[in-house]
Amino acid sequence: MMNRQWVLDHYPDGPATLDTWRLIETPIPELGPRQILVRVQWLSLDPYMRGRISPAQNYTAGVKPGGAMHGGGVGEVIASSHPDWAVGDLVETMAMNWQEYAVVTPDLPGAARANRVPKDVPPQACLSWLGMPGLTAYVGLLEIGRPKPGETVVVSAASGAVGQVAGQIAKLMGARVVAIAGSDDKLAHCLGLGMDAGINYRTTKDLDAAIAAACPDGVDVFFDNTGGPIHDAVLANLAVRARVIICGRIAVVDKTPAEDIGLRASARLIVTRATIQGLVVFDWWHLRDEAFKHLAAWHRSGHIRFREDVLDGLERMPEAFLRMMAGGNHGKQLVRL
Amino acid sequence: MMNRQWVLDHYPDGPATLDTWRLIETPIPELGPRQILVRVQWLSLDPYMRGRISPAQNYTAGVKPGGAMHGGGVGEVIASSHPDWAVGDLVETMAMNWQEYAVVTPDLPGAARANRVPKDVPPQACLSWLGMPGLTAYVGLLEIGRPKPGETVVVSAASGAVGQVAGQIAKLMGARVVAIAGSDDKLAHCLGLGMDAGINYRTTKDLDAAIAAACPDGVDVFFDNTGGPIHDAVLANLAVRARVIICGRIAVVDKTPAEDIGLRASARLIVTRATIQGLVVFDWWHLRDEAFKHLAAWHRSGHIRFREDVLDGLERMPEAFLRMMAGGNHGKQLVRL
Repeated sequence: MMNRQWVLDHYPDGPATLDTWRLIETPIPELGPRQILVRVQWLSLDPYMRGRISPAQNYTAGVKPGGAMHGGGVGEVIASSHPDWAVGDLVETMAMNWQEYAVVTPDLPGAARANRVPKDVPPQACLSWLGMPGLTAYVGLLEIGRPKPGETVVVSAASGAVGQVAGQIAKLMGARVVAIAGSDDKLAHCLGLGMDAGINYRTTKDLDAAIAAACPDGVDVFFDNTGGPIHDAVLANLAVRARVIICGRIAVVDKTPAEDIGLRASARLIVTRATIQGLVVFDWWHLRDEAFKHLAAWHRSGHIRFREDVLDGLERMPEAFLRMMAGGNHGKQLVRL
Repeated sequence: MMNRQWVLDHYPDGPATLDTWRLIETPIPELGPRQILVRVQWLSLDPYMRGRISPAQNYTAGVKPGGAMHGGGVGEVIASSHPDWAVGDLVETMAMNWQEYAVVTPDLPGAARANRVPKDVPPQACLSWLGMPGLTAYVGLLEIGRPKPGETVVVSAASGAVGQVAGQIAKLMGARVVAIAGSDDKLAHCLGLGMDAGINYRTTKDLDAAIAAACPDGVDVFFDNTGGPIHDAVLANLAVRARVIICGRIAVVDKTPAEDIGLRASARLIVTRATIQGLVVFDWWHLRDEAFKHLAAWHRSGHIRFREDVLDGLERMPEAFLRMMAGGNHGKQLVRL
């Protein structure tokens, strides 16, 4: 039985392109002990993947040219040598990778572990609001940003997978939420989710002034998914004792050299005594069960709603990735196999 | 009875100059209730003063042109309408200002409060290691940076008022300390205080590489007194879960515009999950007694030693300030009246 799999062709110099990866056919390996064979149904596209196809230092090892492209997914067990897993079970894991069939070792530690898909949600929710992006938003708000009721929270890439959840959790915590996104349609979606105001960073000439106007008492919590000029403009408007969560830098990650030149934070940090903290969700995997219990309850109560952007077919993975990196997606980018 | 007093002449555009202030003669005001008249003996020069002579937003109100220049000092009470203060008492306050005679209200809250000078230290210690700079170093290390034994701490402006104390507290906490300063003489002083290695930022061509070589396991705690290119070079070498204390930005505070352009931290913060926090010592004044008890004990045990740089005469205040801002001082800059 053959498998189709995307492997990294070469490290991109600047933005990834369609030929950054190539699709190969390989035999599906035999199952070892305590493994499962999964027919993949959904694959996730996430900005962290850009860091995995770079030779630069990162928080974890990346993909080497010729290696299978990393990624999370959901699928159905079609063979099992593991006593706890049976044919027909639905499984989610961050270690699914970009392929049709995955041999998964369910008992790996941390984020590589395989998890059962809950029965009362669409299975692909495990890749978005009830998955890694949901945990990211939960940790950023509950553990790092900790907005108080009435405080102002700014979320960049607010209509994205993490941003949608972050904005809605901030509302649940009683904060006022200002969404930043790249189109009026995305902002309308954010307002529809209950966020209070929106700024279109593509059409706003003076972002600093727009944030100042939208946040007259300053920004208490900034959930930064983009980096770059949006980051600078929000940092220029921090309130005293602000908390900044550095979660993503999609705006600058394709730049060469990879280091990011702009406004140094030092002046504002002293004036405001603010705190900036880098967030890598894989450090917080021990909070996964706690987060998912709350996220599921908030979803049942209607407080977490979510928009997906679905393309069909494994062959569209590179296209879906490029689309997400360029902000062409409307909601969480997924591929359905 | 007349008083000589330095007032701000105008906001400097770029670095301050000798004519940024002017020396005026004014009558000494009458004492109101619960006040003391102080003959000033020592005045402190500190980098925070640059922020007080700028119209830009700061953590507290600055000096307006024509107003008395802010500053801490030590002196002798020569008249008192306060029941707890007698002629001959030695007094220290952050609200002494640049003048020969000060009318002081001892009971003001927070940092403006007047405090007795301990009998077993040189009185000017209240302006350095047993004063605001000492508290700054204490809070930065004990409350924010929290180095663990064996971790690497980098201190910029390591031979300055805050830096000398920070480096020695870090040693007491069991850390390895790398000093950054602007001359070999200053570095020799830091090594004499027990710090482990030194980098001369003026003569080192590749600061990033020099820090990497001096900190082979990365920088766990960075006590940043300068900002600017030193900040960038240290941030490029953070260890995982590093803590960065943004305490001062003397390297860039004179730049116009005042906002500081350089390396954005976002990439490194995500890779390292580091935390950057702005420190304004006046937020931590409630820890003053605790800090001074420890600092005094460490001084008695010989673990805190300290170098001062003294100029004589009130008329030399602007010269002393310019000297400090340019790094021409060797140790804490003071003026003795």
